[in-house]
Amino acid sequence: MKVLIALGGNAILKRGEKGTAEEQMTNVRATARHLVKLLEEGDRLAITHGNGPQVGDILLKNEFAKAILPPMPLDICGAESQGMIGYMLQQGLQDELYAAGLDLPVVTVVTRVLIDQSDPAFANPTKPIGPFYTYAEVPRLQQERGWKMVDDSGRGFRRVVPSPSPVEILEGKTVAELFESGTLVIAAGGGGIPVVRDNEGVVKGVEAVLDKDRTAALLAEVLGVEILLILTDVPQVYLDYNKPGQHAIEELTVQECKRLLEQGQFPAGSMGPKIESAVRFLESGGDRVIITSLEMAENALAGRAGTRIVR
Amino acid sequence: MKVLIALGGNAILKRGEKGTAEEQMTNVRATARHLVKLLEEGDRLAITHGNGPQVGDILLKNEFAKAILPPMPLDICGAESQGMIGYMLQQGLQDELYAAGLDLPVVTVVTRVLIDQSDPAFANPTKPIGPFYTYAEVPRLQQERGWKMVDDSGRGFRRVVPSPSPVEILEGKTVAELFESGTLVIAAGGGGIPVVRDNEGVVKGVEAVLDKDRTAALLAEVLGVEILLILTDVPQVYLDYNKPGQHAIEELTVQECKRLLEQGQFPAGSMGPKIESAVRFLESGGDRVIITSLEMAENALAGRAGTRIVR
Repeated sequence: MKVLIALGGNAILKRGEKGTAEEQMTNVRATARHLVKLLEEGDRLAITHGNGPQVGDILLKNEFAKAILPPMPLDICGAESQGMIGYMLQQGLQDELYAAGLDLPVVTVVTRVLIDQSDPAFANPTKPIGPFYTYAEVPRLQQERGWKMVDDSGRGFRRVVPSPSPVEILEGKTVAELFESGTLVIAAGGGGIPVVRDNEGVVKGVEAVLDKDRTAALLAEVLGVEILLILTDVPQVYLDYNKPGQHAIEELTVQECKRLLEQGQFPAGSMGPKIESAVRFLESGGDRVIITSLEMAENALAGRAGTRIVR
Repeated sequence: MKVLIALGGNAILKRGEKGTAEEQMTNVRATARHLVKLLEEGDRLAITHGNGPQVGDILLKNEFAKAILPPMPLDICGAESQGMIGYMLQQGLQDELYAAGLDLPVVTVVTRVLIDQSDPAFANPTKPIGPFYTYAEVPRLQQERGWKMVDDSGRGFRRVVPSPSPVEILEGKTVAELFESGTLVIAAGGGGIPVVRDNEGVVKGVEAVLDKDRTAALLAEVLGVEILLILTDVPQVYLDYNKPGQHAIEELTVQECKRLLEQGQFPAGSMGPKIESAVRFLESGGDRVIITSLEMAENALAGRAGTRIVR
């Protein structure tokens, strides 16, 4: 089967880790082992991934150095993170492929994703990014940098940026051709580098972040895969998550997803975008979405684990 | 004609600039305009590029933040710079293509370059990288980080790393396929991410930098292009450069190159690797190497400017 894998941040860096290159490569190699098992089963894979911790570190390094070096805007930081994570995945995957006796090119494509400059998200930035600041620093940052700042769950103040909807994967045709020719292609990392096309037709980077699962749904459509496999830190989707009566779901239809989204069962910061992305992919002609953990990926593809979402 | 363009650092950032994203995008757009003119002439292009100033800034940002965030090794910093510069080139090129009415996919491939772990360069690191330090800081850096440090032309002390020879472009097959299919492909930025294959067959990143012109010669061979066009900050190669009697050269043969290299006409840090790379490409079957400035690229390809190197 043709499968697009959407790797969560924890496939590359686990909570509580410092973020050293060694930690990340260790995690990536473990991730690669799971993915190579799927390849050994005969599945055809493409890979996309989150970039939260990595782009967070890049932003923080920019802030530390800003007295001397001009900080890079978010689109460029996103591009850096695609190079970094793509490279680590290439290394891990190619070694595990070699160990498994499989010979498959593994390639990362730097990927831009077009968004609509009139997307309503631009009027209402909601996505916190980068370092935490104290209340005292807020007015200066708002004035000097033009940032919108919010109190992030009482942990401090952070910049918020828009999280608009992906409209077109600009390198989509090439990614699809590579996938068709049998290349293990890594694309649209961190949801893609956000760009808009202005009224003169010029494509410009913007200060925004894209939700990686929403972009994954679009990429799955472009690639024509049957299955979108969203790997996260839980083995299944839950109803009443973290509440009394929490229980795992084996299967959901698009209609059930819509109803549960309306009921507010899936929070905006975590499961919500995954379920919305599942709906989008299935309504665009996709066959199946599976949400599970990396460890359960094989079993879930075989129908023995995870949460299946179908039309 | 099929041409591999090797862009010098000044195609992206000029000496004396601060390195803001705006400056870099302005330079990249100017570069893109020149390259699109070549495409309009009917030439088929692939692009590789330097990354000196960009990877230097990434390293410096790592050092600024190292009390809080673990610094990334050189291979990962190189991968970041490929994502960053590749993205900027994609943006600039696609806009200029759009303005010229050309429809061509522009894609960056994150590229690793295999080097031999027994390369003699590892025993004798020569390439200064990253920030300058004072003499007082040297012993601590040597001890804590295991760095080899040198006095860089009296400007301060810097870390030196090996600059080994490129052996194989690991993503070469994919890059060649993209090039053949008519994609404007950007690859092996900064000379490629340096990796070695250890005795167990595991591919590992290493703390080294690759010379972008040497890798360009290898890439030109892999792509089967007729011409390697090396764009730098001078319009021609000079004999007795910066000395009384300096004069420009119109044409050189491989044999003349070898003789002049032996005479020490071309310094190791600048023209030397370009001439050596020209020799390598021509001896591997290449047709022509042209060394010139971005501004003279069109005229040079038409035989009216630059320095031609032939077999």
